Amino acid sequence: MNIAIIVYVIGWVLEFEALFLSLPMFVGLYYKEYNSSLAYFIVAILCLTIGFILRRIPLKSDELYLREGFAAVAFSWLFLSVFGCFPFMITGEIPGFINALFETVSGFTTTGASILNDVEALSHASIFWRSFTHWVGGMGIFMLILTILPLAGAHGMNLMRAESPGPSVGKVLPKIKDTAIMTYAAYIGITVIGFITFLFTRMSVFEAATMIFGTVGTGGFGIYNDSVASFTPLQINVITFFMIISGINYNMYFCLMTRQFKQAFSFEEIRWYIAIIVTSTCVISYNIHHMYPTISESIRHAAFQVGSIITTSGFSTADFDKWPQFSKTILVILMFIGACAGSTGGGFKVSRLLILVKSIGKELQLIIHPNLSKRIHIDHHSLSNETLRSTNAYAAIYFILVFASVLLVGVDGFDFTTNFTAVAATLNNIGPGLELVGPTHSFDLYSNFAKCILIFDMLAGRLELFPVLILFVPGCWRKY
Amino acid sequence: MNIAIIVYVIGWVLEFEALFLSLPMFVGLYYKEYNSSLAYFIVAILCLTIGFILRRIPLKSDELYLREGFAAVAFSWLFLSVFGCFPFMITGEIPGFINALFETVSGFTTTGASILNDVEALSHASIFWRSFTHWVGGMGIFMLILTILPLAGAHGMNLMRAESPGPSVGKVLPKIKDTAIMTYAAYIGITVIGFITFLFTRMSVFEAATMIFGTVGTGGFGIYNDSVASFTPLQINVITFFMIISGINYNMYFCLMTRQFKQAFSFEEIRWYIAIIVTSTCVISYNIHHMYPTISESIRHAAFQVGSIITTSGFSTADFDKWPQFSKTILVILMFIGACAGSTGGGFKVSRLLILVKSIGKELQLIIHPNLSKRIHIDHHSLSNETLRSTNAYAAIYFILVFASVLLVGVDGFDFTTNFTAVAATLNNIGPGLELVGPTHSFDLYSNFAKCILIFDMLAGRLELFPVLILFVPGCWRKY
Repeated sequence: MNIAIIVYVIGWVLEFEALFLSLPMFVGLYYKEYNSSLAYFIVAILCLTIGFILRRIPLKSDELYLREGFAAVAFSWLFLSVFGCFPFMITGEIPGFINALFETVSGFTTTGASILNDVEALSHASIFWRSFTHWVGGMGIFMLILTILPLAGAHGMNLMRAESPGPSVGKVLPKIKDTAIMTYAAYIGITVIGFITFLFTRMSVFEAATMIFGTVGTGGFGIYNDSVASFTPLQINVITFFMIISGINYNMYFCLMTRQFKQAFSFEEIRWYIAIIVTSTCVISYNIHHMYPTISESIRHAAFQVGSIITTSGFSTADFDKWPQFSKTILVILMFIGACAGSTGGGFKVSRLLILVKSIGKELQLIIHPNLSKRIHIDHHSLSNETLRSTNAYAAIYFILVFASVLLVGVDGFDFTTNFTAVAATLNNIGPGLELVGPTHSFDLYSNFAKCILIFDMLAGRLELFPVLILFVPGCWRKY
Repeated sequence: MNIAIIVYVIGWVLEFEALFLSLPMFVGLYYKEYNSSLAYFIVAILCLTIGFILRRIPLKSDELYLREGFAAVAFSWLFLSVFGCFPFMITGEIPGFINALFETVSGFTTTGASILNDVEALSHASIFWRSFTHWVGGMGIFMLILTILPLAGAHGMNLMRAESPGPSVGKVLPKIKDTAIMTYAAYIGITVIGFITFLFTRMSVFEAATMIFGTVGTGGFGIYNDSVASFTPLQINVITFFMIISGINYNMYFCLMTRQFKQAFSFEEIRWYIAIIVTSTCVISYNIHHMYPTISESIRHAAFQVGSIITTSGFSTADFDKWPQFSKTILVILMFIGACAGSTGGGFKVSRLLILVKSIGKELQLIIHPNLSKRIHIDHHSLSNETLRSTNAYAAIYFILVFASVLLVGVDGFDFTTNFTAVAATLNNIGPGLELVGPTHSFDLYSNFAKCILIFDMLAGRLELFPVLILFVPGCWRKY
């Protein structure tokens, strides 16, 4: 393991974090919250200094193979979160390191699970920072850095592979830098369009900015205590729309930007994603229609909640924990499905589900016709054995991690549904679960030990398991 | 699809069922329950007649490929259960076809989930029949038939493969018939030894017979309303022992019978199985020790419950739904792990878990050393790609089926924990779940629709998914 290169990469990440932290500092200045502003300033300077020092440590080699890439990404996200939580502690808005870290990891991983019972008590600067972490984490810190710096040269791909979601991350353009620029261009484009649309629906500038960060980053930190329930029906519909398009594979936007319209609308994964959303919305609307005065209101709540859960945002307009069991079960299932690969959403990913379903179909076909070809096709391409094997291993780790986490979190003694949905909501980067961690509650009830397990789950979920788990394989740390 | 051969096979199965039904008939005569006895007699004659007719339908060919094997086994189990439930309906002991079918499927699949609230109200004949279905289902009806008849000649292997649990069913001896005889010899041997041991612990002959059927078949139908709570500590410990040895891969007994002692104790799967039992028992004993007067009592309850759940028997000595959440979560996880492949136990199977864990380890190793060999070894044998692929497909179907069932059962509106553990308990052929389907409750609360889903899950779980699912693949029914 080339540890020096990992330290070097972390150095760059901290430099960028200093830049990010300056934004809430200015927000604080604008709102005359000088104490908060100072806290963000201090931490920004700290990041700048430590980042500068780390970048100066001499490298013996600039080799960055897949394992260094994975380790660098895992540690970078940890450092990003640890430094990002300091302002909350300095201002005293979130007491306790574990609580502050939980909130920040929840932000960067676009989970949106909160330990705060009164969000509105925070300063504007801190509300802004919370939401902004969603935006940074949504598309990923390395994707951003790689638009600017040729980090680790030709090995940069290993950083991108470790951070970007999906069973097979491809370079859509031959050069990594161009891929990163293209992706961020689409990301910024959607953010800006969303921001302007939000303003048109009569949100304030502050509301529009913070809400669009949480929406396109599929984060889910609300800026009010009732999440988004107090927004107008129009505003809610617009948020629904932007959540759903943020859960789409960014390859589609890439195709649109390069005028490959036919290809843009032919992705199997996206068709399934839309089909799942439409079906779930219809079924839930019907199942909850007796709880709301009009059909349109039940459709609005259903569509919003389905969009919010499948994209793993986790905003809520209603206390869906009070919905009928059937609707709640659909939402729990959507928690696990998640959004498209190559989007800002979390979860297991529609494409992985598609691969599994197709491999099941193939297996059944093989029983009937043992001499059939064993290849599985997605988007008319034959799936490599590598991808299939890795998807299967992913599914296995995923479920083992769910069970292990539910077991460990169970030490606190809360009921099974609470623990199960708390793990589902953090591992899939959603936010609220059911029962005691439902949309009207917070994660504050858990002990520090359980919070640490859930922090681990959020990071493992966002980085798609392998980068985090590999650190625990003894062979990983051995020298070449 | 060669439907004629499937009909022929079902014919033989019904002939055997007539034989089985004569046993409770004699039990009824002995206890002077003439009404019950008559009911079993009538159904036995019915089975004999229909079986005779079905066997006489002319065959165009005796080809029985894998798909016919799978379909024949699935339908045979369904017919076995449908005819097996008639006595309950005729005597009026279980009103309603769905209820009677649920109870019988639960018996043959060795689940042990009951819709009865008062078991002790049944006649001796029916209590005997309920428990005896466990014994027949435990090792499988075809394994029994193949000891006697050369059913489907050289193709008989396809019937055995469809019915026997485990990722890779091997013929331990070159001839199918010898394999079947050897397996049943071990099965009968353990049953007889258990029966005699039970008698020594001062059980009555009726108690010993019915309890040993449920124990070695890993079924779990109790003969008293409190399951086995009223048995003496010694009796409970003896039941624990026989449950645990019944969850062991029968290949071990085969090795013991052929004096391959070294090999008998070298199976990786069995080592893991024992390790999981010992660890879980220790942890739960510690976790519940404050609930019982002595350490030995908490160990007894913990060991019994761990053995009962991991072997998927489902007996209970205590209301484990009242245990701490941590212990309950361990039990839920054990529900999914299940017993060894090639045993009478259900669940996902330790060997499948072992294959998945090893494939995860391999995947992580490949990130660190991309040039490593990709082979996985179990018991010093390299695992074939076939087995790995099929194990992965199995895991995928398994979890999709869990979620789909929880969703459909959710229509009844009970809480998530009840639904989730009801599905876990039926798909894994265990018996009781938690909350409303906990050990002191019954499955009677569910609607007929939900009961049908759970009946499907029991059959799918016992036959290991593929035989049941393949019937829904359109291509399955096409002619050659």
